[in-house]
Amino acid sequence: MTERVYNFSAGPAMLPVEVLEEAQRDLLGMPGIGMSVLEMSHRSKTVVAIMESAEDDIRKLAGVPSNYRMLFLSGGASLQFSMVPMNLLPANGRADYVVSGSFAKLALQEAQKLGQINVAASTESQGFVRVPYQEELTLDPEAAYVHITTNNTIYGTEWQTEPDVNGVPLIADASSNIFSKPIDISKYGLIYAGAQKNLGVAGVALVLIRDDLLPSIPDGLPAMLDYNVQIKAKSAHNTPPVFSIYVLGLVVKWLQQQGGLEQVARNNQEKAQPLYDAIDSGEFYRGHALLDHRSLTNVTFRLPSEELEQQFVVEADAAGLMDLKGHRSVGGIRASIYNAFPPAGVESLVSFMKEFERTHG
Amino acid sequence: MTERVYNFSAGPAMLPVEVLEEAQRDLLGMPGIGMSVLEMSHRSKTVVAIMESAEDDIRKLAGVPSNYRMLFLSGGASLQFSMVPMNLLPANGRADYVVSGSFAKLALQEAQKLGQINVAASTESQGFVRVPYQEELTLDPEAAYVHITTNNTIYGTEWQTEPDVNGVPLIADASSNIFSKPIDISKYGLIYAGAQKNLGVAGVALVLIRDDLLPSIPDGLPAMLDYNVQIKAKSAHNTPPVFSIYVLGLVVKWLQQQGGLEQVARNNQEKAQPLYDAIDSGEFYRGHALLDHRSLTNVTFRLPSEELEQQFVVEADAAGLMDLKGHRSVGGIRASIYNAFPPAGVESLVSFMKEFERTHG
Repeated sequence: MTERVYNFSAGPAMLPVEVLEEAQRDLLGMPGIGMSVLEMSHRSKTVVAIMESAEDDIRKLAGVPSNYRMLFLSGGASLQFSMVPMNLLPANGRADYVVSGSFAKLALQEAQKLGQINVAASTESQGFVRVPYQEELTLDPEAAYVHITTNNTIYGTEWQTEPDVNGVPLIADASSNIFSKPIDISKYGLIYAGAQKNLGVAGVALVLIRDDLLPSIPDGLPAMLDYNVQIKAKSAHNTPPVFSIYVLGLVVKWLQQQGGLEQVARNNQEKAQPLYDAIDSGEFYRGHALLDHRSLTNVTFRLPSEELEQQFVVEADAAGLMDLKGHRSVGGIRASIYNAFPPAGVESLVSFMKEFERTHG
Repeated sequence: MTERVYNFSAGPAMLPVEVLEEAQRDLLGMPGIGMSVLEMSHRSKTVVAIMESAEDDIRKLAGVPSNYRMLFLSGGASLQFSMVPMNLLPANGRADYVVSGSFAKLALQEAQKLGQINVAASTESQGFVRVPYQEELTLDPEAAYVHITTNNTIYGTEWQTEPDVNGVPLIADASSNIFSKPIDISKYGLIYAGAQKNLGVAGVALVLIRDDLLPSIPDGLPAMLDYNVQIKAKSAHNTPPVFSIYVLGLVVKWLQQQGGLEQVARNNQEKAQPLYDAIDSGEFYRGHALLDHRSLTNVTFRLPSEELEQQFVVEADAAGLMDLKGHRSVGGIRASIYNAFPPAGVESLVSFMKEFERTHG
């Protein structure tokens, strides 16, 4: 087999090698079952147990309160951009959206198709170098909910604490930093996250929803897009994305084995720090995000010129440090170092950066 | 590893062992790439090539005309139940639905939430033992489209030829018999199929749509549910279900290696025949579907009593013939023998049936 490289992709992203090895070992047949998880009925005992274990393990890992329901849905976070307003924005109701990056804008645009939306704040004119400050939020006390994006993948910024939204349900797209640190679920009405960054592979989104929000969901929604239908069906109104849920379950077990979310946060902090230190060590590299808004999972920075940035990406790639090109809307370099990204990969990148600066600075 | 069993599940269902072995071999790293297909950016060259190959191979396998676009979408066939009318049923327009089984009814119910729907025919009062006859169809010449279900998984019936719908676009849920035999795509306006029966694993639906239907799709649909948006994005408006598409691609290559759809149809015919012969050999077993409406992929039959049926399922299970219990709405036995189901498994079932009849008849 080709040696494994360090993959800094913003997602889909690296998985724990232990997870890949377990999935590989069992791919022709789950132990004692004689068929692959890829071939099993979603109504089979084995698959039902996989889904129940994934839920139980997430409840333990993240301390999910008992008044929250959990769903494993297809369509990724982007389908949640539509499902949230379809389910939770009443006819003639209003919702507040905080625009802190590109995905936040996409969530806003999808919501605007479905109802009356207030932009509670936007940092777009600042190039999304930070999330909004509390005092910038123009919150509507009558809003059905306030929507935020907890971590902005493209810009490398992160909310350090939840905004105060005066008791209105807070809804969060947490795709790019979920379970990278402890999270107080009780502060949210609904949290959703595509799995392919911190939780596993593409094909499934995790949704946590506080049960007091369920009775007001309107009747007559398309069944696949109705939280109540999916809750009643335990995420299996139709055939759910079984393999993606299975891998998510393996990743959650791996997170538990790391010592839980407090320890995962320490690991992520220790992993990111040398990289931010390298960026801050001189004038050659410049961080994109403001210091107090930096993300632990997506590290964005610039070089003195676009030519050097291109060269950096090409040479890094040749050194087995893959997919470091920043998103076109920011330019520069982005290193995505989610939960499963190994610390040794960051060390390699830091060494590479020092050498690149020495030879090109 | 535990010995592989014969899995008669209606879906997810058995995969070709060659496909499982290739996926297993490469699960820690695609050859020469150094990362798993589970970890790769959907914008990477490798994943883009996987998606393009899958499309090219399907075009060759099924003779897809060049005026058809192809999509790989999440949400399964059930999300198509809603996407079809959202995209193709104009405001104040009407559509015809032919009700030939449970999934056909679900498709109808989702469409009824979104517009004015005519039930062009239903065989429900006959217990869905057949699909409707041409002369039973009450077709609306002004309908935006006519929707059929090409094979009825639960009842084991199949359209032997497409109905004549007078030039109105014919739309088909082909989940349970797609690519089990040659298909004249040009007879359809749109065909969709969840992959987990004949084409691979859960998590992706294949959609083929004739391009003259695209201009009338309304603006302002949720982006994830808009065929035009997904076509423009090459199925990657957001992160698509990469692994499910990868496996679908492997299965399509396997179908090509079988000799193409003509040969696949002969294989499926030869595989199903001994089972239908066993059912028809005496009075002990009774087929559910009318002779001329029998499905090649889902074989449904009854025993003299429900007690015997339960015993049959339990003893078959113990003999490694798994998941033969019929759907609760029909009862009895259902043997799903999709493309990848091995002929040896049918031979085992036939032997088991003869022995069961001898000892319990």
